[in-house]
Amino acid sequence: MPPAVGNNSAICVVNAGGWGTALAVLLARSGKPVVLWARREAAATELSQTRENRAYLPGVTLPLSLDVTSDLAVALRGRRIVIVATVSSHLREIARLLAPFLDAEAIVVHGTKGFEAETLLRCSVVLEQELGPRFDNRVAVLSGPTHAEEVARGVPSAAVLACPMLEVAIELQQALGGPTFRLYVNQDRTGVEVCGSLKNVIGLAAGVGDGLGFGDNTRAALITRSLAEMRRLTAALGGEPATVSGLAGLGDVVATCTSQHSRNRWAGEQIGRGRQLDEILASTAKVVEGVPATRSAVALAERHGVDLPICEQVEAVLFRGRQPLQALEALMTREPTHEA
Amino acid sequence: MPPAVGNNSAICVVNAGGWGTALAVLLARSGKPVVLWARREAAATELSQTRENRAYLPGVTLPLSLDVTSDLAVALRGRRIVIVATVSSHLREIARLLAPFLDAEAIVVHGTKGFEAETLLRCSVVLEQELGPRFDNRVAVLSGPTHAEEVARGVPSAAVLACPMLEVAIELQQALGGPTFRLYVNQDRTGVEVCGSLKNVIGLAAGVGDGLGFGDNTRAALITRSLAEMRRLTAALGGEPATVSGLAGLGDVVATCTSQHSRNRWAGEQIGRGRQLDEILASTAKVVEGVPATRSAVALAERHGVDLPICEQVEAVLFRGRQPLQALEALMTREPTHEA
Repeated sequence: MPPAVGNNSAICVVNAGGWGTALAVLLARSGKPVVLWARREAAATELSQTRENRAYLPGVTLPLSLDVTSDLAVALRGRRIVIVATVSSHLREIARLLAPFLDAEAIVVHGTKGFEAETLLRCSVVLEQELGPRFDNRVAVLSGPTHAEEVARGVPSAAVLACPMLEVAIELQQALGGPTFRLYVNQDRTGVEVCGSLKNVIGLAAGVGDGLGFGDNTRAALITRSLAEMRRLTAALGGEPATVSGLAGLGDVVATCTSQHSRNRWAGEQIGRGRQLDEILASTAKVVEGVPATRSAVALAERHGVDLPICEQVEAVLFRGRQPLQALEALMTREPTHEA
Repeated sequence: MPPAVGNNSAICVVNAGGWGTALAVLLARSGKPVVLWARREAAATELSQTRENRAYLPGVTLPLSLDVTSDLAVALRGRRIVIVATVSSHLREIARLLAPFLDAEAIVVHGTKGFEAETLLRCSVVLEQELGPRFDNRVAVLSGPTHAEEVARGVPSAAVLACPMLEVAIELQQALGGPTFRLYVNQDRTGVEVCGSLKNVIGLAAGVGDGLGFGDNTRAALITRSLAEMRRLTAALGGEPATVSGLAGLGDVVATCTSQHSRNRWAGEQIGRGRQLDEILASTAKVVEGVPATRSAVALAERHGVDLPICEQVEAVLFRGRQPLQALEALMTREPTHEA
């Protein structure tokens, strides 16, 4: 275990999407040495020159102290902390790109929501596979109710840092936390990653309800019942059901299902209004992680013999032509029962 | 135990406020024989003639099958199910009015949120004290994310019926539930009542954050942390902490903290914007239950040695002049810690 370098650790944020840019801005503003890596050279140049990420985080000024580069060697050399903030479908490829440049003492933390579609693996497992045995049980995940637009504006937010090796999570907590960004540590990386993936599926479901004209009561009932699904899948994958009651589960579900910023809730709302999925996805440059996560969740549920009724209804709506109203009604009208 | 009469049971809803009227409308629409009791004769006459409760539920038409009366004998004679939907400050007085007229086989269920201010008793205990020993452990509570405006519109909603005597809860579930009003039974009346009371305090806190211009991330973190307070007070009063994860706890907190319909969230928002409490309360005919509930929660916390940091900050803002921003910051900037 290399020595902790605390708040003076040099940080690289990998990928200049909305979330990566917001994190880099937050950290740079609080005086931390941060570099943001953008994949395309043209994007890095534009961010450097305009001091704005117009595509993914418009209206937020990048502090002058924030360096942006597309050169991975420059981005990663000597960095103690590497934050990977990419979409799930690019994670393995990005991990392969990073591996040769990582500092010998680097700590890697990811903020990716979802499973790898082809393998159904959690993101930390994908990273460990690609980064090599030195990273076993040392890749952390950062997750929680942290809409990029709000984090970048300095709105008070709180999130979870989870890693099987507690000292890694604690070092990240000290290095990344601040007065408007409160971080809690947790060793249940599995639970945090399951929650982060399922919450986008629930966000889609809540959005469908919104699009159908349902109300706050419906959404609150859906959110409440969704936690039981998160607990079941978390337990089946070896995580701690209690994690679901924290910021990465409940907190992020609430934020996703009730926020105008959530693109998953938004996509669900469009579906509830009768638009087609292909058309919705084609209309935005941003990735709707809940769509692949729905397929993965249902596949994992089948593999592990777990009952995920909300995820199954979302899957039927997205991929098998079920009418949104019929799906929501199916969820609301199951036999009367005890609360469980 | 009198025989169950199921869906054909005759129902009286006591008090024609927003929630009582919404419940009566919902039940009458689904073909159940319901009478709504209004305290003032003039109000009963107006509701009967205009078929609308303009003061508390404007825009909703009362079905012709719904009788409205201010005569307690007419309202209660022969009714199997009596739903008491009054504010906490009137509950004991209303219970005293009801007692002489209740049918020998009546079942009483209440939908009141809060504690009795003077005694800190839960509402079911107040009712049992006033209705007599025949009702011991037989008073039920109906609670959950059920904004009256939405229930009256037939928006799909779900709630909890809790009673120590399970057969009472099950009979109520069968008599009151329907396709857009899904009811779950629970024997933990204490937990359900604690949740229903605290959720309005949390709603005030969330509103304060909204009024200060905080965001969805802040609110999601507040909601998540509020459940720990509900669990602690529930356990201290002899309830089941698991109840907090259900509709009466989490579900209702989410609905209250995120809805434009919630008067508690609204009142908190006004405070966050700098208005004075007296002025806010004077500006609405509706009762803001979170205000007395805050005082009761803090008093109960002291009595039982329970830590309720959110409730304590709300109490300081409401009654001891603490600045809202200072209170919210106090909650966000406690020492970094594990999630618990």
